[in-house]
Amino acid sequence: MSDVRIVAVGGYNAVGRNMTAVQIDRDIVILDMGIKLDRVQIHEDVETERMHSLDLIKIEAIPDDTVMTGIDGDVKAIVCTHGHLDHIGAIPKLAHRYNAPIIGTPFTMALISQLIAKEQRFKVKNELKILNAGETLDITDRIGVEFIKVQHSIPDTVFGVIHIPEGAILYASDFRFDRTPVLGETTDMERLRTLKNDRVLAMIVESTRVRVPGKTPSEQIAKDLLWDALLGTEESNSGVMVTTFASHIARVKSIVDAAEKMGRKPVLLGRSMDTYARTAMKMGIVDFPENLSICSDRKSRDAKLKDANKNRCDYLPVVTGHQGEPGAVLTRIAADDTPYKVEFGDKVMFSANVIPMPLNAANRSIVETKLRMKGARLYTNLHVSGHASREDHWELLRMVQPECIIPTHGDLSMTSDYAVLAEEAGYILGDNIHVLRNGQQLYLS
Amino acid sequence: MSDVRIVAVGGYNAVGRNMTAVQIDRDIVILDMGIKLDRVQIHEDVETERMHSLDLIKIEAIPDDTVMTGIDGDVKAIVCTHGHLDHIGAIPKLAHRYNAPIIGTPFTMALISQLIAKEQRFKVKNELKILNAGETLDITDRIGVEFIKVQHSIPDTVFGVIHIPEGAILYASDFRFDRTPVLGETTDMERLRTLKNDRVLAMIVESTRVRVPGKTPSEQIAKDLLWDALLGTEESNSGVMVTTFASHIARVKSIVDAAEKMGRKPVLLGRSMDTYARTAMKMGIVDFPENLSICSDRKSRDAKLKDANKNRCDYLPVVTGHQGEPGAVLTRIAADDTPYKVEFGDKVMFSANVIPMPLNAANRSIVETKLRMKGARLYTNLHVSGHASREDHWELLRMVQPECIIPTHGDLSMTSDYAVLAEEAGYILGDNIHVLRNGQQLYLS
Amino acid sequence: MSDVRIVAVGGYNAVGRNMTAVQIDRDIVILDMGIKLDRVQIHEDVETERMHSLDLIKIEAIPDDTVMTGIDGDVKAIVCTHGHLDHIGAIPKLAHRYNAPIIGTPFTMALISQLIAKEQRFKVKNELKILNAGETLDITDRIGVEFIKVQHSIPDTVFGVIHIPEGAILYASDFRFDRTPVLGETTDMERLRTLKNDRVLAMIVESTRVRVPGKTPSEQIAKDLLWDALLGTEESNSGVMVTTFASHIARVKSIVDAAEKMGRKPVLLGRSMDTYARTAMKMGIVDFPENLSICSDRKSRDAKLKDANKNRCDYLPVVTGHQGEPGAVLTRIAADDTPYKVEFGDKVMFSANVIPMPLNAANRSIVETKLRMKGARLYTNLHVSGHASREDHWELLRMVQPECIIPTHGDLSMTSDYAVLAEEAGYILGDNIHVLRNGQQLYLS
Amino acid sequence: MSDVRIVAVGGYNAVGRNMTAVQIDRDIVILDMGIKLDRVQIHEDVETERMHSLDLIKIEAIPDDTVMTGIDGDVKAIVCTHGHLDHIGAIPKLAHRYNAPIIGTPFTMALISQLIAKEQRFKVKNELKILNAGETLDITDRIGVEFIKVQHSIPDTVFGVIHIPEGAILYASDFRFDRTPVLGETTDMERLRTLKNDRVLAMIVESTRVRVPGKTPSEQIAKDLLWDALLGTEESNSGVMVTTFASHIARVKSIVDAAEKMGRKPVLLGRSMDTYARTAMKMGIVDFPENLSICSDRKSRDAKLKDANKNRCDYLPVVTGHQGEPGAVLTRIAADDTPYKVEFGDKVMFSANVIPMPLNAANRSIVETKLRMKGARLYTNLHVSGHASREDHWELLRMVQPECIIPTHGDLSMTSDYAVLAEEAGYILGDNIHVLRNGQQLYLS
Repeated sequence: MSDVRIVAVGGYNAVGRNMTAVQIDRDIVILDMGIKLDRVQIHEDVETERMHSLDLIKIEAIPDDTVMTGIDGDVKAIVCTHGHLDHIGAIPKLAHRYNAPIIGTPFTMALISQLIAKEQRFKVKNELKILNAGETLDITDRIGVEFIKVQHSIPDTVFGVIHIPEGAILYASDFRFDRTPVLGETTDMERLRTLKNDRVLAMIVESTRVRVPGKTPSEQIAKDLLWDALLGTEESNSGVMVTTFASHIARVKSIVDAAEKMGRKPVLLGRSMDTYARTAMKMGIVDFPENLSICSDRKSRDAKLKDANKNRCDYLPVVTGHQGEPGAVLTRIAADDTPYKVEFGDKVMFSANVIPMPLNAANRSIVETKLRMKGARLYTNLHVSGHASREDHWELLRMVQPECIIPTHGDLSMTSDYAVLAEEAGYILGDNIHVLRNGQQLYLS
Repeated sequence: MSDVRIVAVGGYNAVGRNMTAVQIDRDIVILDMGIKLDRVQIHEDVETERMHSLDLIKIEAIPDDTVMTGIDGDVKAIVCTHGHLDHIGAIPKLAHRYNAPIIGTPFTMALISQLIAKEQRFKVKNELKILNAGETLDITDRIGVEFIKVQHSIPDTVFGVIHIPEGAILYASDFRFDRTPVLGETTDMERLRTLKNDRVLAMIVESTRVRVPGKTPSEQIAKDLLWDALLGTEESNSGVMVTTFASHIARVKSIVDAAEKMGRKPVLLGRSMDTYARTAMKMGIVDFPENLSICSDRKSRDAKLKDANKNRCDYLPVVTGHQGEPGAVLTRIAADDTPYKVEFGDKVMFSANVIPMPLNAANRSIVETKLRMKGARLYTNLHVSGHASREDHWELLRMVQPECIIPTHGDLSMTSDYAVLAEEAGYILGDNIHVLRNGQQLYLS
Repeated sequence: MSDVRIVAVGGYNAVGRNMTAVQIDRDIVILDMGIKLDRVQIHEDVETERMHSLDLIKIEAIPDDTVMTGIDGDVKAIVCTHGHLDHIGAIPKLAHRYNAPIIGTPFTMALISQLIAKEQRFKVKNELKILNAGETLDITDRIGVEFIKVQHSIPDTVFGVIHIPEGAILYASDFRFDRTPVLGETTDMERLRTLKNDRVLAMIVESTRVRVPGKTPSEQIAKDLLWDALLGTEESNSGVMVTTFASHIARVKSIVDAAEKMGRKPVLLGRSMDTYARTAMKMGIVDFPENLSICSDRKSRDAKLKDANKNRCDYLPVVTGHQGEPGAVLTRIAADDTPYKVEFGDKVMFSANVIPMPLNAANRSIVETKLRMKGARLYTNLHVSGHASREDHWELLRMVQPECIIPTHGDLSMTSDYAVLAEEAGYILGDNIHVLRNGQQLYLS
Repeated sequence: MSDVRIVAVGGYNAVGRNMTAVQIDRDIVILDMGIKLDRVQIHEDVETERMHSLDLIKIEAIPDDTVMTGIDGDVKAIVCTHGHLDHIGAIPKLAHRYNAPIIGTPFTMALISQLIAKEQRFKVKNELKILNAGETLDITDRIGVEFIKVQHSIPDTVFGVIHIPEGAILYASDFRFDRTPVLGETTDMERLRTLKNDRVLAMIVESTRVRVPGKTPSEQIAKDLLWDALLGTEESNSGVMVTTFASHIARVKSIVDAAEKMGRKPVLLGRSMDTYARTAMKMGIVDFPENLSICSDRKSRDAKLKDANKNRCDYLPVVTGHQGEPGAVLTRIAADDTPYKVEFGDKVMFSANVIPMPLNAANRSIVETKLRMKGARLYTNLHVSGHASREDHWELLRMVQPECIIPTHGDLSMTSDYAVLAEEAGYILGDNIHVLRNGQQLYLS
């Protein structure tokens, strides 16, 4: 049997900066290479674009891949499973150290290309390879990488499966089982059902919301909540704006579609809104109506907001700033720093949770306070999570029947919670459930 | 102008035992007459059916209507707005003291009749009058009572409006604005929109969930969550049961309908399941499929559970016990006190929140612990509330434009929260917002 | 009887910017004139020293005293009960509008003088009058102001009593009943016990912690917790620093005294540490040992920290920054922005709670994260509150027997909580308990 | 080197039913043998005295020691480290299966004897051996057991140390570092400091409160809080009673001593108050004043309460019932089931936390509600924990320098939290930190 080793590089001590390496004999496959943005945000005047990897490692913002120097073998591929920054954000800082192609689905690769283009310190020249969901790519004679379509909160998310002669290693981070998705196809349950026939030697699986009971609701529920708030109202002649995750194209689509029903013109405002929406449109992932405007730069944004301020019932602005991020459009609007003046009765809808970090809570609370002082009505949490809940995990676990489990994408309390779930399914901690910490390795016997 | 007085009898110091009296000159209309069950439950061996009113008043279980002796005038009507016990449960103990008819919608009146029949201490001989939603009944020459259709978590809920020559007094407790209800018609928004033309002198309004931001989701969302859990699963060959509020006929209907899609026979188990479902069926409020069984007495219940135990994929039991109540069906099943033996992988779905009282939390936690020890998979909180949230209240307030507001159905923290909402709409505490306490009165000038 | 009116200017809608006015016929006494700093902090680049009152009122940072224009009469005195900014911080912005002396205890007046000196927009030329605890000052022929010694978390705190021919109006904000204080005398219980003989017409009383059950522990408890942490340790050869409220001279004294027992030199670092400590020393309120250094400006602070860095077991730095305030000494140390380099095993002790605002939680969490990343050991919450708890309030209420009660120093949930406490003592909401909102008035009949 | 194995029998999946076995070659030492009472309480009509071990194991009430059948060797000693039921409560059910003496400190052994005497199902005939703190007993030629004095919330608590030729295994559950204890000697820090010289091969250590920051305060703090509440009051002419843990003799002593200062007669009421106090007195552990009465049986208890009811300022009853346990004295008093009638203004002081289980929260809340309805004033949480906090654990860890660590006395979230602490000290999860689960074993290499 091949000598197989799992290296927990990042994402095992806290949510963020995900990176896992799988060594099969002398070949290595890297899975994800992300950043942990809150470790950047707590420092003043940090510009990641200009920073050196080692400094970012020191502040625990990117994975400490110096542990890879102790692994004997060659990296054959860097596989990214979706385009969120905690999965691809360290590519510009770390990928150039490895003589290996970067592999991802089309949307993910487009985002990676953009990141690389913005990087100012390092030149990342790795080959960029596209692999579609449902397809397999041979990395070496004996190693193939398969992508299985899943649903998450960004388009084109996949599970990665590393196939070796003896079986498969499943990398299942991040996902939800959405049986009625709003955009794109549902998770490929059929493939997941047959995966056990390939003998799953190990499953590396996210644990972020394993403690949440039951199932994660479908994105359709988020759409229904949003439409009910936008359309089911007695006061339809007020200003309304929505803020959500710019990368959550399905959500943005639901909002834009509501605008049509409301008889309003949808406008996407903010740099990241522009980036993600245009990329998704260009790739045919989403179809937006013709009357959608997208404003990125300050000038066009302010011009549009000026018009929206005068004719507030004609527009449905979709803006950045759901976490109260300094500089985001909603944050500026709340601070009266744009031509749009919030008026009594205007509705501001947050189609996003507060990401549970004190800094987000503070920024969000500041924005909410300012909006309320102007008389805005706030609708918060018109949202469902993109992460699997406890019973979703139960189903995946029972379907895939992995021989061993390595929970990731969480702090020790989350990975331990996954261990308890796995115990309920008959697994044994330390025997076939392995709770690793950043920098640790596991040999599969 | 008539001399109008609002008397806060019960429900102003804590959630439960609602009762408000409105005096117009020498005529009095009583609105609701409920019980506070948790004040009963904390005492051992209390059988309310045999207890005297004064003892129940002493333990704060029913409204202290001795305050009514200080009100000069005659009670002309006792109006009940829906059939929950916190609104009708004190009828058997207090109504006989008043020489006045009891007025309610058909379903509410059916439930009141049943309560009166079970009472063992007092003879309640008040006339029972049915008034349909959308209709008005003249109580005296100058006073009419109108029922406006609203949605809540029990069929046939209404707002009560007391019409007097000078205007209207709106009693808005309890409700939600459900624009896509699963059963029955939606809240009568059209009538609510015109109500302001009648000049609303006062609005007495529930405050239970005014602090919850945004809108209360539609019952359709609860149905979607339930169906997704029941139908969208990889493990369809396990035992499944659901527990919910027996009086929540729309919810029960959603579950029963899912059974058909699952190819399982629905069974309602438990005394209150029987009571509410049969009453609703008899009155044409709900249509259940022919294969629905309803088992109330222990013998038929156990026979059905014995069969369900053998053929666990053939049934979808809908049971009482969502709060872990001692003696309820789910509580007995968890304690292995029925022929149904919970097995590894069986699913138990709670289509109910935990009503926020420590005793419920304890009972529920005991049931959950026992079920988990047997290997059951728990789905909790497949539920949406029946009470309006902050922005629903905002809309009602702005639509109705009452001249003054009396929040009810809450403790002081809840009624105060309503006051803050009303301040946001321009009302002034102590001027046209009146936070009353049990036993207090307000003269409308 | 005199015509007496209470005007709730500020501090009735939220904690902060306290100001109450009492009108007796045509004479007015103002009680406190504070700022609400968190309303300043949420705005970027706000320099209060240069701002106009009306702008500060607009952002709800200082009391909206424009309500005073509607009150017919002359302000005869501005009485400040202690030196916290939420009680004196608006003096530089508002006091000059009133032709009246400012009255306070010696320590409070010293702090007010410093505030006035720093103000850059307005010239505050009001007469500054010192009144000692235990003394009474005649404001007019018929009105006297008495100061009653209480304990709080800053020296020289008093209750203000306005004596008029018909009785007394007690202003009881803020206080605790500390029967074993560490510094200064205990609350003057003897005077409080006799106060009822003067007939207390009204008591205006803080409500911040009325919901906390039991009694607030004595400052002695805080000292014991601190000494146990500082002296009762197995690792006495590490760096140790403490952060606490600079104005809490008793606490600072407890820390400085511990230094002597530890054989370390105490150092106070930070501008506000300097201000408050020197003021207290100058006034004979506290005695510090001769080896205490106080460093305020950056240069001397850094020199001292450089030395402390080399000889870390020789010093006990007492620093600002317990809320993670940007620019405070601990915040800079955590950011590696001083010559003191935190090392593995260094202890950082927080003798302060996190003031419950999201921004504080965020700032504090950032500082803690940075300190932990350097290996520091954190001791949090070596602290007791300076505010009365529920049973302390019960005792005050029963002792003073006021004819009516106006809770202040809180949001509506806090003032309502006080109302519930008063109800337990037999008072009646709306009758002799009056929950006011900013801008409202109450006539005493 | 000897073959050493640690067997995690109970207390590793949840707090309660502690039992660990240490195998040294063919000799086995069992450490603690406790019960988990909440697993008993959730079942109705369970009488543990009559139950069989296997049934108690099935409901997870006592350790599943069937795992011991797989361990090859002979049990040479059952060592109990203190007298709490979660450490000794399973002795009557399990000890007879082992042909080995039970070893404990005098107070612990006295409690064990009483348990054995009450047992109705099994005959426990194991030899009972007393070992004093500070002494060592040879179990075999090569194995010695040493007791090290520590402080906890029951007298005569020790750490157990198993000495073998190669070094020592430390069992450190439960403890706190109390440097100013109210009763008995402080933790034997001197011995703990030298223990590392014996080479600590493994430390099995409690994790219950490792997540609580800072240090656990001294019992002196609890006494000061109690005395301040009992003596520092304006209303000394009311009824007062205190409830606390009957086994917490130091706490009971603090209360009884306060009675003298108050000029009241102390009375201990309740069966467990009687048991623990008399045992402690008999053994010379505590000295109570002569005027202390102790009433255990219902008749004498009610006689005393009748007198206390008439002369309520003459007594200070110390009662069972701090968790609202059905049948406890306070629970009966609250239910008006004794001759003592709670009156307006009576004080009830809880010198205990609510043990964090939903059933306790419910029972306690019921008692508090009933007491409040009678007008009682409640003082809750006059208490400090008996368990070490994070920095206490840090000190123990750094002092003892164990070669490996096995956290116990907690669920996985607690033992994992300990692992994070140990990581901060340089240990590595899975290498020299071992998070075990009930039934698992660890070989020391």
